[in-house]
Amino acid sequence: MTQPTEIERLIEMMAKLPGLGPRSARRAVLHLVARREGQLAPLARQMQQVADTARACVRCGNIGTAELCPICADGRRANGQICVVETVADLWAMERAGVFRGRYHVLGGTLSALDAVGPEELRIPDLIGRIAEEEVSEVILALPATVDGQTTAHYIADRLEDRVTLTSLAQGVPIGGELDFLDDGTITAALNARKPL
Amino acid sequence: MTQPTEIERLIEMMAKLPGLGPRSARRAVLHLVARREGQLAPLARQMQQVADTARACVRCGNIGTAELCPICADGRRANGQICVVETVADLWAMERAGVFRGRYHVLGGTLSALDAVGPEELRIPDLIGRIAEEEVSEVILALPATVDGQTTAHYIADRLEDRVTLTSLAQGVPIGGELDFLDDGTITAALNARKPL
Repeated sequence: MTQPTEIERLIEMMAKLPGLGPRSARRAVLHLVARREGQLAPLARQMQQVADTARACVRCGNIGTAELCPICADGRRANGQICVVETVADLWAMERAGVFRGRYHVLGGTLSALDAVGPEELRIPDLIGRIAEEEVSEVILALPATVDGQTTAHYIADRLEDRVTLTSLAQGVPIGGELDFLDDGTITAALNARKPL
Repeated sequence: MTQPTEIERLIEMMAKLPGLGPRSARRAVLHLVARREGQLAPLARQMQQVADTARACVRCGNIGTAELCPICADGRRANGQICVVETVADLWAMERAGVFRGRYHVLGGTLSALDAVGPEELRIPDLIGRIAEEEVSEVILALPATVDGQTTAHYIADRLEDRVTLTSLAQGVPIGGELDFLDDGTITAALNARKPL
């Protein structure tokens, strides 16, 4: 073998990251090995740091370093609204838009008969518990527009409909989107939900 | 901020790797944080391990964990031939082909007037020293077919031409390559170097 085993093993581990394959992992590792002091060692330390401190928020499922994540711990955010998302990445995307000032609930997935994912695997009981405890008036379902996502949204709506106002994100033409590049389903949804000017 | 600072900093560091940007770094970090025990902690340890042990081979410039890299330390490889490559990645590519059984010399770059890279920056004096010490009979120049790569090849050839046999990798149609997708320069080179059947 040409590459010493330690480096080979690092390449194999990097190649398992989403978006990287064997070739790009090799490139990234060579880049790092050529910058041992400046990049590789600090990156290793930072990863260890995150591995030691990162944990899921006990209330919403977001990632944080304490029992409550920064959003749940933030007293300035409104308590009455909970936005339900599938993943932490979706939560971050909502936060980048910066317009929602309530709380979140991360399901950690969607219901899926094929993968045998039921409500108990998804923190849905936790969500129902929060509705009772936190005086929630509105639950915004920001779940993916896939079959599983919409199944999950309907399931949650069934369980909560007589207790809170339920809303979901609007579907339609994305800002900057050209009709010619949109799929038929999106155009149909946008037409059905058309608004008076 | 939504992401705790530690995780944010890790994302920033990952985004500096070649082939990753802010978006894919975020995805990779979320993937790792969701697998703290199984992937993140082992990856951090492996990186630290490589940061502590990896070093350049004093003879050829390849990466290894000892003073001599596995290739230079391997007594079964032929001493008479040295294959000169630009980077460690190029050396690995040559080794994957698996046909060359001699030694290597990694320049670490190519001569470049624009970037003020001269022979001293490139381990060229080391190469000339090795020719004298190691009873080398052939130097194979496997440098990139770019202007800087060919300038470097000519410079090395000038310095060594009366001491060893100099060869370079053949240029022509890649195996499996279709003429229609090849650039004019490659087709010209392949035609000029045509061989009797």
